[in-house]
Order: sequence, then structure tokens, then C-alpha cells
Amino acid sequence: MVKHKTSALQENQGVSNSETTNASSIAKIKSNRKNTTDVDTLLSGILNRDITILSKSITLIESSLPEHAQKSNELLKKCLPHANKSVRIGITGVPGVGKSTFIEVFGSFLTSIGKRVAVLAVDPSSSITKGSILGDKTRMETLVKNKNAFIRPSAASDTLGGVARKTRESIILCEAAGFDVILIETVGVGQSETTVHSMVDFFLLLQLTGAGDELQGMKRGILEMSDAVVINKADGANLNLAKSTASDFKKTLHLYNEKPSGWIPKVSTCSAIENKGIEDVWSIIQEYLQVTSKNDFFSIKRNEQNTFWLTETIKNSLTSSFFNNKTVKNELEQQLKLIEKNKTTPFAAAEYILNIKTKN
Amino acid sequence: MVKHKTSALQENQGVSNSETTNASSIAKIKSNRKNTTDVDTLLSGILNRDITILSKSITLIESSLPEHAQKSNELLKKCLPHANKSVRIGITGVPGVGKSTFIEVFGSFLTSIGKRVAVLAVDPSSSITKGSILGDKTRMETLVKNKNAFIRPSAASDTLGGVARKTRESIILCEAAGFDVILIETVGVGQSETTVHSMVDFFLLLQLTGAGDELQGMKRGILEMSDAVVINKADGANLNLAKSTASDFKKTLHLYNEKPSGWIPKVSTCSAIENKGIEDVWSIIQEYLQVTSKNDFFSIKRNEQNTFWLTETIKNSLTSSFFNNKTVKNELEQQLKLIEKNKTTPFAAAEYILNIKTKN
Repeated sequence: MVKHKTSALQENQGVSNSETTNASSIAKIKSNRKNTTDVDTLLSGILNRDITILSKSITLIESSLPEHAQKSNELLKKCLPHANKSVRIGITGVPGVGKSTFIEVFGSFLTSIGKRVAVLAVDPSSSITKGSILGDKTRMETLVKNKNAFIRPSAASDTLGGVARKTRESIILCEAAGFDVILIETVGVGQSETTVHSMVDFFLLLQLTGAGDELQGMKRGILEMSDAVVINKADGANLNLAKSTASDFKKTLHLYNEKPSGWIPKVSTCSAIENKGIEDVWSIIQEYLQVTSKNDFFSIKRNEQNTFWLTETIKNSLTSSFFNNKTVKNELEQQLKLIEKNKTTPFAAAEYILNIKTKN
Repeated sequence: MVKHKTSALQENQGVSNSETTNASSIAKIKSNRKNTTDVDTLLSGILNRDITILSKSITLIESSLPEHAQKSNELLKKCLPHANKSVRIGITGVPGVGKSTFIEVFGSFLTSIGKRVAVLAVDPSSSITKGSILGDKTRMETLVKNKNAFIRPSAASDTLGGVARKTRESIILCEAAGFDVILIETVGVGQSETTVHSMVDFFLLLQLTGAGDELQGMKRGILEMSDAVVINKADGANLNLAKSTASDFKKTLHLYNEKPSGWIPKVSTCSAIENKGIEDVWSIIQEYLQVTSKNDFFSIKRNEQNTFWLTETIKNSLTSSFFNNKTVKNELEQQLKLIEKNKTTPFAAAEYILNIKTKN
């Protein structure tokens, strides 16, 4: 399967076992690979900033095996008192805008000023092979070798909710491991922006130059939730166009209502390739942190996000277990047919199905 | 309580019983007021286009008394084969844009070309008094006297979902009573637009003149869901400004992605007071109906809306009964405190609460 590249953090196809490998060696390797390390060893490894242990722990919380769930919850609980001390930054933009190059350069800048940077990704389309997973980090070759940076590809799950949960929990582990800036990359299409927006402190939209057209292909809502718009590839012959695009965005953002944060979204230009304007982005974020820590919006937002994820998780669990019920599925199909034939209304049908389910 | 006027369809305070009224007369009047008419009499009244019976029937479906629910469902079921033959038009715009005057003039125009017009409203803020309800229809004085028009104030309910359901069901009754155009007015703020959008075929946004500024105070999403933007009050000294505003909107709408309907949103100007440009609005709607009946989007959308309301009703019922549970309420409060103290994660808390509930 050839997957269209939307993120540098995507996974390659797994490598299948060589036919010449001895079967018992395979069993041995697989057993070694299992998460047999106890929670306290994982915890102290994380707190000691051991990247190998951090990776192993994220693999544990990403596991869908029921026997891993309890261990994973225990580890998270023990990491929590050491978490919550980073700034979480969401980065989005349509494919081709240069997210990976930007993160490579931005991340390297941050480490150069003494920050430790973790890069996570939310890509609901990422599929997982049963074999090993290789993160394609070729487009972040400097950052990947940086000892103060940690790059992790998107968790895999059948649902965006699943990816979201695993990413939120990975943030906690990364924070406990002393990363003070968490960058969360997401693909610039669909619902994943809303998901990432609800787990970060600051939301950054990368854009390309182009007058007006650049709004195409992007949902209005994404612009509305952005705390900063950065026009990338502001270099060479593109420079003037980038500046006028920035000015267009300033006008558009000006039309929006004031945000509850009291923050007026900023617009700037940068060239990730020429390493220009990168520092400005960090200045904007610094300013944001000042404003929102002064008016307490920073912690209000984190509390709201926690409440959101708590109730969302409950709602999703309730509705998915209801709609996955076999009786419900059959009745739903029947009732939709009756509605189409004008024999019942959506509301009467809903009541009917809810009653059927309660009786069973 | 002085309510800020956002709709001509709002309700006045109820009239309290005079102290000199005999108590037994009150009981007699109240008993007569009750919905004692049987379903078949109501049905034949509706099919015979008896407006008094239609009003009485809408009062029945708006009732929250459990003993009315069954009767109401039966009536709706019997009306369904006669429904679904109108065009449903949602009309929104910020307070002051002239929605009532527009509906008065547009509705009168429609009756003049042989249409029968029902006007409903969705106002989630409408509160109801226990006494009698007087619709304040003073701003639609021509339409209210028109025998081919029917005006009904917003249903009252504690929730927007409640108002939505009652309005959707009222549409069915109005259609069975032979109304071929249903206008649904909504206030131009908050979530009610999304609700109305999901129950109409065509969504019309009324706007005032003003360059750029007119976007303020309005969520971007409302513009995005509009099938037409009509600049009202295009008269006198305002005329040229209205035309340039229209041209601004055309440019903005042009930036949006093509709609699944294949319809490109139209922009026009009108003066409800001078009765100008009203016919153009109807032409736009006619054109929309042609396009969407040809590509079948019209019925696809109605089916999608039915599925949406069916699943929404089930989801709301499931989650509200869960979160209204006393044990859940207490546990939720406890868990949120633990989250704030970094003692648990939103996901672990959700699992905990779901488990507690399953055991009870």
C-alpha cells in the first residue's frame, strides 16, 4: 500500500520475519520485547530522562492489550505529579506547507536555547502493521540525533478518540521525563485539528503564500482556533508575496471576536529552509504565556480541557457501546427505513430504540 | 422581566388570573382548554386546513405532559404520509437586521403567488409562563391577518434540543395542513443556527450594510452554512453601500470550498421596507431547488437530517440520563478535583465513573 505522505512522522510498512529466522529465536525476541519491566523501574527511568525507557513506556500506554491497561494506568498516575510543567504547542497546516522542516528548525532552535523538546504527532489515518514499526524521521535528521529532542510517530488506533487518548497520555510521560516544550504535529485536514487544539496551550497554523487562495482547502474553524498564523517559505522571490499574505491574514483575524484568552492572534512570516523568523515564533509564544499566565487563562484552559476529555470519554464510551449493540444495529436499520417511508419520525424512532434496549 | 427583543415571534408575560374570578369557573375553563379532542378529529381538521385545529395540535405536541406524548406521537404518525411536500427555509441574522419585516414582506409575496406560508421560530431563550401565551405578532401585522399564512411563536423548552424537536414536529403538522413554504426564523446568535440548519432545505442569512464590519459578532460557521446572503435595508442613502457589501460577500463566499450540494451560495440585496428585491430571493431559492432536485441532493440532505436527528436524540438521551444520575454527579465532582490535583487523568477518571455506574 502506497500511502500519500502527509507527515514526516508517519510509519513505514513493517518488516516481515525472514523465512530463515529460527522460530524459537523469534519467540525469544518477542518475549524480550514484551513490557515485562515493572512500573517502578519504568517510572525511575522516565524521571531519570532515559529515552529508551520513555519509548518503552509510550509503547506500553499505546498497547491495546487488556493486561497492559492496569500497568499503564498505574504508571500514568505515578508520572502525574511530575507532569504539567511544559508548554504544549499544536502545529498544523495543509500537506506541503513544510511542517516537518519547520519542526526540525524550530525544535533545533529551542534546544539551542536550553529547552528539551518532544515531538508527537496526531494522524488518525496512521495504520499499524503487526510487525515492527519504523518511524520515518528522515525529514528531521538533525533533530532526531539531538540528545535534547525526542520524536515519536503518531499512535495508531481505529478511532481519532483512540489516537487522542494515547497522545494525551504520552504528553504526561514526556513531561515527567523533563521535556519542557511539547510540539504536537497534526495533518492539516479534517477533524484532527480540533482534537489537537483541545490538548495544547498554543495552536499554531502554518500557511503558504498566495493572496486569498491560501484559505481554500482549509476549514474556516481552523483559522478561528489559531493563536498564531505563520507564513512559511518566506524566502527568495516569495518574500514580498509572503508579507502581503501576512497582511491579508492580519485583516481577516482582526474581524474575529476577541478570544476568551484576551489574546489577539499574531501573524508572522518565516523561512524554515533559510532559518529565518524562527525566533519570532518563539517570542510570540513567550508573549502568549505571559498574557495567559497573568489573567490565569493558561490554567483555566487546562482545567477546561481536562473536563472536556473526561466527559468526552464517557460520552463516547456510552454511545459506542450502545450503537455497537447488535439489537440496536438491527433496529436502527429498520427504523431508518420506516423514516424514509414516512412511517415514523426520527424522535419516535429514537424512543422506540431506547425502549427496546432498556428491555434487553 | 423585560426581555430584549430578538424576535417578533417572542412571547409576552402571561396574564395572571384575576382575583375576582370564581375558582370553579377557572377549573371549568382550564378543563375545556385541555386537549380532549381525539386524534382522528385533529387529523381531519389538519388535513382540512383548519388553522384552529392546527394550533391546537401544535400545542399538543409542545406539551410536556406524559399523557399527551402517546397521543402526540399517534397524530404525527398519521400526518407523516401527508408531510414532506414543502420547501423548508431557515432565516437568520443578528438582532436589528430586520428579520421580522423581511418575513412579513417575503411571506406576503409568497401568498400573492399562490403559496401557503407557515412561519415558525426557534428561540432557545424563550421562557414560558404558566398562564396564557400571547404571541407578539405586531411586527407582522399584514401576514398575521393573511388566511394563507400561519405564524407560530417558538416552542418553549429547557433545552435547545427540546425546542428543536418540537419545531421539527410542528413542521410535519404544518406540511400536512397544506403549507408549501415553511419559514423558520432563528435568532442570529449562538447554537440555534446549527439546529435550524439541520432541519431546513435552504438556509438564508440576512445581513446589514457595512464594509467588513458586518462579519463581526457573527460566527464564521454561519456564513459557511448559508445558501444565500441577502443584504437587507438596501434603500435610500444606504443603497450603494449595500451593493459594495454584497460584492464583499461574493468574494468571501468565493473562497469557500464547493458545497456537497454543488450549489454556489448567492448574494443579493433587498429592502424589506420598500418591498424591493424580494422576488429575487424567491428566484434564488427556486434555482436552488432545481439544482438540488436534479442532482438528488435535496432528498439526500433530508435523509441525512433524519439520520442526524435519530442518532442525536439517542445520544442526548443516553448522556443526559447518565450525567443526571446522582451517583455519577458526585463521582464526577470528586474525580475532577483529583484531576486538578494531578492524582488521576481524565481517561482513568472516565473509566472509574463508567465502572461505578455499571455496578449500580
